[in-house]
Amino acid sequence: MFLSESDSMDVMIILGSRSDLPIGEKVKSTLKDFGVDCKLTVASAHRTPDVVIKLVEKSDAKVFIAVAGLSAALPGFIAAHTQRPVIGVPVSGKVNIDSILSITQMPPGVPVAAVGLDAGENAALLAVEILALLDKRLEGELISYRSRQRERVLSDAREVGGDGV
Amino acid sequence: MFLSESDSMDVMIILGSRSDLPIGEKVKSTLKDFGVDCKLTVASAHRTPDVVIKLVEKSDAKVFIAVAGLSAALPGFIAAHTQRPVIGVPVSGKVNIDSILSITQMPPGVPVAAVGLDAGENAALLAVEILALLDKRLEGELISYRSRQRERVLSDAREVGGDGV
Amino acid sequence: MFLSESDSMDVMIILGSRSDLPIGEKVKSTLKDFGVDCKLTVASAHRTPDVVIKLVEKSDAKVFIAVAGLSAALPGFIAAHTQRPVIGVPVSGKVNIDSILSITQMPPGVPVAAVGLDAGENAALLAVEILALLDKRLEGELISYRSRQRERVLSDAREVGGDGV
Amino acid sequence: MFLSESDSMDVMIILGSRSDLPIGEKVKSTLKDFGVDCKLTVASAHRTPDVVIKLVEKSDAKVFIAVAGLSAALPGFIAAHTQRPVIGVPVSGKVNIDSILSITQMPPGVPVAAVGLDAGENAALLAVEILALLDKRLEGELISYRSRQRERVLSDAREVGGDGV
Amino acid sequence: MFLSESDSMDVMIILGSRSDLPIGEKVKSTLKDFGVDCKLTVASAHRTPDVVIKLVEKSDAKVFIAVAGLSAALPGFIAAHTQRPVIGVPVSGKVNIDSILSITQMPPGVPVAAVGLDAGENAALLAVEILALLDKRLEGELISYRSRQRERVLSDAREVGGDGV
Amino acid sequence: MFLSESDSMDVMIILGSRSDLPIGEKVKSTLKDFGVDCKLTVASAHRTPDVVIKLVEKSDAKVFIAVAGLSAALPGFIAAHTQRPVIGVPVSGKVNIDSILSITQMPPGVPVAAVGLDAGENAALLAVEILALLDKRLEGELISYRSRQRERVLSDAREVGGDGV
Amino acid sequence: MFLSESDSMDVMIILGSRSDLPIGEKVKSTLKDFGVDCKLTVASAHRTPDVVIKLVEKSDAKVFIAVAGLSAALPGFIAAHTQRPVIGVPVSGKVNIDSILSITQMPPGVPVAAVGLDAGENAALLAVEILALLDKRLEGELISYRSRQRERVLSDAREVGGDGV
Amino acid sequence: MFLSESDSMDVMIILGSRSDLPIGEKVKSTLKDFGVDCKLTVASAHRTPDVVIKLVEKSDAKVFIAVAGLSAALPGFIAAHTQRPVIGVPVSGKVNIDSILSITQMPPGVPVAAVGLDAGENAALLAVEILALLDKRLEGELISYRSRQRERVLSDAREVGGDGV
Repeated sequence: MFLSESDSMDVMIILGSRSDLPIGEKVKSTLKDFGVDCKLTVASAHRTPDVVIKLVEKSDAKVFIAVAGLSAALPGFIAAHTQRPVIGVPVSGKVNIDSILSITQMPPGVPVAAVGLDAGENAALLAVEILALLDKRLEGELISYRSRQRERVLSDAREVGGDGV
Repeated sequence: MFLSESDSMDVMIILGSRSDLPIGEKVKSTLKDFGVDCKLTVASAHRTPDVVIKLVEKSDAKVFIAVAGLSAALPGFIAAHTQRPVIGVPVSGKVNIDSILSITQMPPGVPVAAVGLDAGENAALLAVEILALLDKRLEGELISYRSRQRERVLSDAREVGGDGV
Repeated sequence: MFLSESDSMDVMIILGSRSDLPIGEKVKSTLKDFGVDCKLTVASAHRTPDVVIKLVEKSDAKVFIAVAGLSAALPGFIAAHTQRPVIGVPVSGKVNIDSILSITQMPPGVPVAAVGLDAGENAALLAVEILALLDKRLEGELISYRSRQRERVLSDAREVGGDGV
Repeated sequence: MFLSESDSMDVMIILGSRSDLPIGEKVKSTLKDFGVDCKLTVASAHRTPDVVIKLVEKSDAKVFIAVAGLSAALPGFIAAHTQRPVIGVPVSGKVNIDSILSITQMPPGVPVAAVGLDAGENAALLAVEILALLDKRLEGELISYRSRQRERVLSDAREVGGDGV
Repeated sequence: MFLSESDSMDVMIILGSRSDLPIGEKVKSTLKDFGVDCKLTVASAHRTPDVVIKLVEKSDAKVFIAVAGLSAALPGFIAAHTQRPVIGVPVSGKVNIDSILSITQMPPGVPVAAVGLDAGENAALLAVEILALLDKRLEGELISYRSRQRERVLSDAREVGGDGV
Repeated sequence: MFLSESDSMDVMIILGSRSDLPIGEKVKSTLKDFGVDCKLTVASAHRTPDVVIKLVEKSDAKVFIAVAGLSAALPGFIAAHTQRPVIGVPVSGKVNIDSILSITQMPPGVPVAAVGLDAGENAALLAVEILALLDKRLEGELISYRSRQRERVLSDAREVGGDGV
Repeated sequence: MFLSESDSMDVMIILGSRSDLPIGEKVKSTLKDFGVDCKLTVASAHRTPDVVIKLVEKSDAKVFIAVAGLSAALPGFIAAHTQRPVIGVPVSGKVNIDSILSITQMPPGVPVAAVGLDAGENAALLAVEILALLDKRLEGELISYRSRQRERVLSDAREVGGDGV
Repeated sequence: MFLSESDSMDVMIILGSRSDLPIGEKVKSTLKDFGVDCKLTVASAHRTPDVVIKLVEKSDAKVFIAVAGLSAALPGFIAAHTQRPVIGVPVSGKVNIDSILSITQMPPGVPVAAVGLDAGENAALLAVEILALLDKRLEGELISYRSRQRERVLSDAREVGGDGV
């Protein structure tokens, strides 16, 4: 294992395939904006299942974010090996409803928290919301983030509204 | 408001309609099995939006679970009014994919953690996983739960396997 | 609020996101062609729900047109805060059936008038049809519009029909 | 034509088939609750198109409600023959998404206001919202209706909330 | 009407919109290859329903081919006004399953013969198969066409099979 | 082969499976109402392909009607062996969209005329429309049938319209 | 592990849940009809992943058949731990397309052989076809099976064909 | 027939149309990497059904791989004429779910092993897994292949993990 055992993090981001990297980078950059420690790696439920198991069982991550397309088994597979919350991000392709349903329709007993298609930012925010239960600073950051979001919508409103709004 | 302000809880379960009660009861009984304080109520994003907002803003719940069918706006509407994690449970009907997509396909910035169709038990377990980050006892309970699940599968295997397995 | 309280209009167009502007502009230009007063703004059911509520409750608009993609909650959220007719326009994306179903499948009691995917022109025309109940001039304009549509189809027929039709 | 020419009404409800009557009755009873004059009939875009055209062109109805399943052409066909608003109610069957898409996905120029699958009550309420622009009494009725809806949700909340909510 | 009443044809091709012309041209060129008289025009079930009715009722066409997208009402509308066979061609767009279902899921009593999405060639061939019941020459042409198709597949096989097939 | 070679018929109805018999009986009884000679049999594209081929190649049927569910290959398989028109009836099951798409989405060159799910009556009517091109009597029967349909709708209208319609 | 290490079999049938037993029994009885040694057990990719891994890695089964519903990860999970062919049977539920897509849409490198929804018999037959490559007797059995199938279709044809077929 | 009768191969790849060649080439190159003899040809279930039958019945191929889009009948048609395993590859187009469902939803008695959309590599690997039951060398190759896959994932992990993983 090339993951140093002493590594510590709050969120572990696991991509089912390197091709999911753009979504993974969005997750990571959003987490970084909140000052959340995270690590991003690639590990496959189908091609390196033992690596996934070791990564998950050794990890002290509080939240896992799994990014996968097609019959996206990775989030559920991670969830099978940890009691920590697992967030699943379905990745778009030619069918789209395949990864959405594969991630949401988990059997009773092993939940995954599904977010929307390619929704890397929302996966990160959901992780931050969870971590904020442990860390007042993050709650403040979320309030600021929401406030900036709000400002952006208001400013968008102003800009589109040349006709009096 | 009939919700006493001094009420305290870990999880607030909000049903979009009283007809969602069977799913809500499953959420509640699962949480009770874990000894998690919860309250269950009915409040509609469309018929009583102000009640939803007040319930959410006054609540000290650490996690919200919203149960809704059709164009299930309730989970997202709750998420818009709290920084706490919101879990959404799509309820089955004549189309099914309507509530699944309405809950998963949230816009960037306001995440909801979607579980599967009618998946009340998984919604509760996801809430427990989140709360377990704050409470070692729950982590132990989750390990026991998983262990009981495992035992049930093994015992099912034994029972179906009259032919040697 | 930057919406001047004295502002008056017949139709308020609200976009869930600035990225919906091309559809919004089509709504607006169609309304302008009919001489209908309208205002277009951006306000999000999830990022600025209070702004949506204030816009809707203060507005004297007779008809609201809400444009939104993904789990398009905006039309229903507006409908929850007004007795005026609300027209919802689903916006296309990677799944498409998500916004169509989110807008059509409203719970009993809070109707939204859904039009087709990206159907800004039809949303505007539906608003004009409603306003025409109050204003004979608009009824005349609709008759002219239909007549021009008809002429265009007939002229298209003539142009494609080099072979005798 | 058996429709007496002197008949007058605010809403004409047209069912594409007699088998749609349960949905049609829901539309009618909801309209009656609001004191809205309506007539309900059966006429088919495919089996009696000329009757539909005559009904629509002779009618002084301010709003049309068309109820139809399968490749539900009736709402669009009515919309092609009137400038009045036409509300379409898709009826459930074995596919469901057929009638929803047939009613929402109208071509540019001829809008239909689609409501949800089997949503007779919402179709009626949308009609009342439109008529309320012409009749202050109806606006009051809608406010009362919303208020009763709200009371029902609050009472549902009270009844399910034996545990403190 | 700009359709000369003395015009005679075997197949009338009606496009719901000029934008369907590429599919319509494929229908026409395929029919021309078989020496079948046809006329192609544009007429809309929603924008010029009376023109559709007149075209259909005056026409001596033995088969009608209707090409339409979205909630493709045109084939069914034509079928409502003739006892002649009507072939419907769903046109692709953003949803695709909308036009396929709108054309296939006709109510009992008014059949439409649906072919595949954008399947202009198959619509023409189906028309030729029907006309061949009246005209031995066409039966021969169909046999030749099938034979050429077969030759093309065999030749494709030869060309791809550099490795021994 | 148990099909006597001298058998003659206008329409051959082939069911992909005996379980499709209710749909097949509807096809047959509708054809009988029109006085059309038909034969109904069971033959499978997958289990008895050679029987299908022989039935089709020996048959003097002018139109074939194939009834099949799931990945309904039968209509297309028949179409591959005749120049006569082939009507395909998708049969309902657990997915429904499987048989609809398998029958409509034929490759270029081998058309099938698809009707709606379980639409045995429409398949028969389409066959009669085709045969009516050869037989004036059938054209008259179709006109009577349409007229009876129309009467039934009018009578349904009368019966539901106790309130003045 | 309660699976005796000396156990030997040709096909191992693994059900993701005991509720899949009716499908599993169909697989087993079909295999028994062919005289194929098989064992049936329950093991979950999510609840007992280690048991699945041990079952698969210890097993000398030549073919695995995995039966699972919802986001049916079991077939893919088995495929990740063996080079032997894995057949996946999607089980029906409220959505259906979830298990079909989860089983078919595997990532490159780890194939699963998907059969149809609830298609236990076809899963068994596919396994027999594979085993028949190793065992001439099975090839003979398959030929007999096909022949019996054929006879049944012919006899069905005879029975439905009271009218001369 | 241009297929020399003495030709011998392990896998026969049949494309329903020459346009499926990119998928077919992927199947072939993957098989070649494993040193598996294969032949690739084009033959259509609808345009050259007799050629398909002859190819299949004459062939000594141990496994067939059929590649087809739309209402992809080819895999099932091949399966109807051989007891050998048939792998079906659905090809992407405008609908996608058409070819997936046409290939998976086979009737009882005639199984096809469906892989994912455009999944040429997985089709080849599944064939190799089946052939490996007969040939120890291939089992070794599969183990190496899996090992290389695993290495690639680990190397991808290393490359994306600049931040410590």
